[in-house]
This record gives sequence, structure tokens and C-alpha cells, in this order.
Amino acid sequence: MKQLFVLMLSVIAITSCLQKEGETVSKKDAALSVIYNRKSVRSYTSQAVSKKDVQTLLKAGFSAPSAKDIRPWELIVLDDRAVLDKFAEEGLRGSRIILHEAPLAIVICGDTVKSTRWSLDCSAVTENILLAAEASDLGAVWLAVFPWRDRIERVMKTLDLPPNILPLAVVAVGHPKGEFTPKDKYDEGKIHWNKW
Amino acid sequence: MKQLFVLMLSVIAITSCLQKEGETVSKKDAALSVIYNRKSVRSYTSQAVSKKDVQTLLKAGFSAPSAKDIRPWELIVLDDRAVLDKFAEEGLRGSRIILHEAPLAIVICGDTVKSTRWSLDCSAVTENILLAAEASDLGAVWLAVFPWRDRIERVMKTLDLPPNILPLAVVAVGHPKGEFTPKDKYDEGKIHWNKW
Repeated sequence: MKQLFVLMLSVIAITSCLQKEGETVSKKDAALSVIYNRKSVRSYTSQAVSKKDVQTLLKAGFSAPSAKDIRPWELIVLDDRAVLDKFAEEGLRGSRIILHEAPLAIVICGDTVKSTRWSLDCSAVTENILLAAEASDLGAVWLAVFPWRDRIERVMKTLDLPPNILPLAVVAVGHPKGEFTPKDKYDEGKIHWNKW
Repeated sequence: MKQLFVLMLSVIAITSCLQKEGETVSKKDAALSVIYNRKSVRSYTSQAVSKKDVQTLLKAGFSAPSAKDIRPWELIVLDDRAVLDKFAEEGLRGSRIILHEAPLAIVICGDTVKSTRWSLDCSAVTENILLAAEASDLGAVWLAVFPWRDRIERVMKTLDLPPNILPLAVVAVGHPKGEFTPKDKYDEGKIHWNKW
């Protein structure tokens, strides 16, 4: 009887172990899989993005590096349906179908007075937000604003931005509607070893 | 005797289970912790970065998004000590202490003819490489080249780059020497809800 009990115990331990392995992976593999699997998701369900997930995306954005640690970024969070719809029509019309559907958009802006390298720093912020969305099983896409003058002017006007605050990109976010697969973009031809 | 064997088996199973739990976390938490914990590491041990880790960093870089999926990047991998030392002296003298110590540097370049948005795309590549280094327990730092003209010219000359290939940044990589802690850069003051 005691023997049976111990045997059962070991079976339970091994089984739960296998289950855990299925759900979890090493820190390294998990992080890399998020980087490798990030993809542009342009269609979303009507489900809102939770406040907790919004905080996660913002925290990821703020974790980006910046030249001389100046942190020249400003983030505008659009989660009000009326504001998003207005922004879709007047701010970034080229992406209006995406923006009418997305329950969330984050406008990544840079302070051009604080840093001459704001567009690079803000690109790292944008990539971090996209990766945090992928990690959170959300879908997201980088909608370009900078360096196109007409888009910059329309976004600045719609959001009433001061002249020193330039919009770099808009990240539309939501729960993916449909299946989206990442591209394999590894290219040996673009790797140069120790010389051009 | 058989009872003892089964008991040992269950102890081993439970122990290995606990060990696995210590090493693994959820995919989401793992990826986010890498984004949050990335930091600039500027000092390295003499240990080389393995070829496998180099491939990981390159694959992460190639996973970045780009405008219209043009992928205007080119990556130059410096892992030859003599080449790195020459690059430290002639290419990016402002970072020569770092580059003399680093066993690896990746120069992220963009094709200015292929895309007008190359500097943003290449910034996302750079951030992905930095995050992959953090995930791999390596230390790395973004050394800026673009948009400083003198740095661009010296790097182009040292690496003999064609005129359409501009260097954006150099990521120095190695096994961290000493302790490095990430900064908490979350800033409520830079979040704007639905309007500026």
C-alpha cells in the first residue's frame, strides 16, 4: 500500500513536471522567440486592451536606450474611441482602416530641442513597444509618420502638438483578429565578416 | 528494496521539477524582463562570444520591422582582434577603450539608396541586437555613429564602405566584467492620455 502511494506520488510529480515544461521555457528562449516572432498585425477584435497591458507597453517603451541618456520621448496614448476615430480621419488617413478598428494607439513623439538623435531613440522605443505587445499576445503594427512631411503636419495638427514635439510613429494595438505569421528575414548575404 | 527505489525516483522527480521552476518563467514575463533589464555594458572579460551567440544576435537584428519591408540593412561583424583594434583606433576613437576590450562588435549600416527611412529601420535592428544580448547574458552597448558626420566618415573609411552604405551604430558585445544595473526610466510626466 505504502509502495503504491509512493509510486503514485512519483507519477504525479513527473506529470506536473512535464506540464510545467510545456508552459514555460528558459528566459533566453522566451525572449528570443518574442523577438523572432514579432510581426505586423493590422486587424483586431473589438476587445479592449487592458490598462495593465497598456502600462506594460509604456514601461517597455521607456526602457529604450537614448543618446547621452537624454530620453527625448513623449508618448500619447489614444484609447478613447471618438479620439481614435478622429485621428483615423484627420491624423493618419493612410492607415484609417487600421485605426478605426484598433482599440489602442500609441503615438511616439520626440523633442527635437532636447536631442538631435530623437528619431533613432524613438525608433528603439517603438520597437520595444512592438515587442512588449508580441510578448503579451497582442497584435501591433508600426505606422510610419516621420520623415513624411504631410503626415507629420497632419498628426501635429490633429493632436495639437507644440512645434518642438515631432511624431515619429503610431503603434496601433489590439487583440489579433485572424492568424498572422512572422517572416523569416535572416539573410547571409547581408552579413559581412570583418570587412565590407 | 523496490520501495526504496521508487522513493528515490520520486525524490529525484520532485527535485528536478523544483530546479526547473527556478530557471523558467512564463514567456511573457521572461521577454518583458529582458526588455526592462537591458542596460549599457561597457566593460567585458576576455572570453570570446560564441559563434552560436553571434548567430542569435544577427537573427534578432534581421527580425526588425522596416518601412514597406525593404530591409535596407547590412551588418558588419568584427570578431578579429586585429580588425577590432584597428577599428578602435581609426574608426570610432571616442569609444576606443570599449572597442579594444570588446571581443565582438556589430556595425549596423543602412542602404541610403534603398530607403529614405533606413536610419529608423536600423535603429530597430540595433535595439533587437541589444535585447538579444541581454537575453543571452551578454553585455552590450549602442555606440552612436549617425548622425555625426566625422564619425560616419571615419567609420566608412576604416571599413571601406561604398558611398550608399551609411553606418548608423556600432554595438560592442562581450561577457560583462563587473555588475551593471538597469535604470528605472518610467516617467508618468511623459504619458499623455488622448491629447497633448
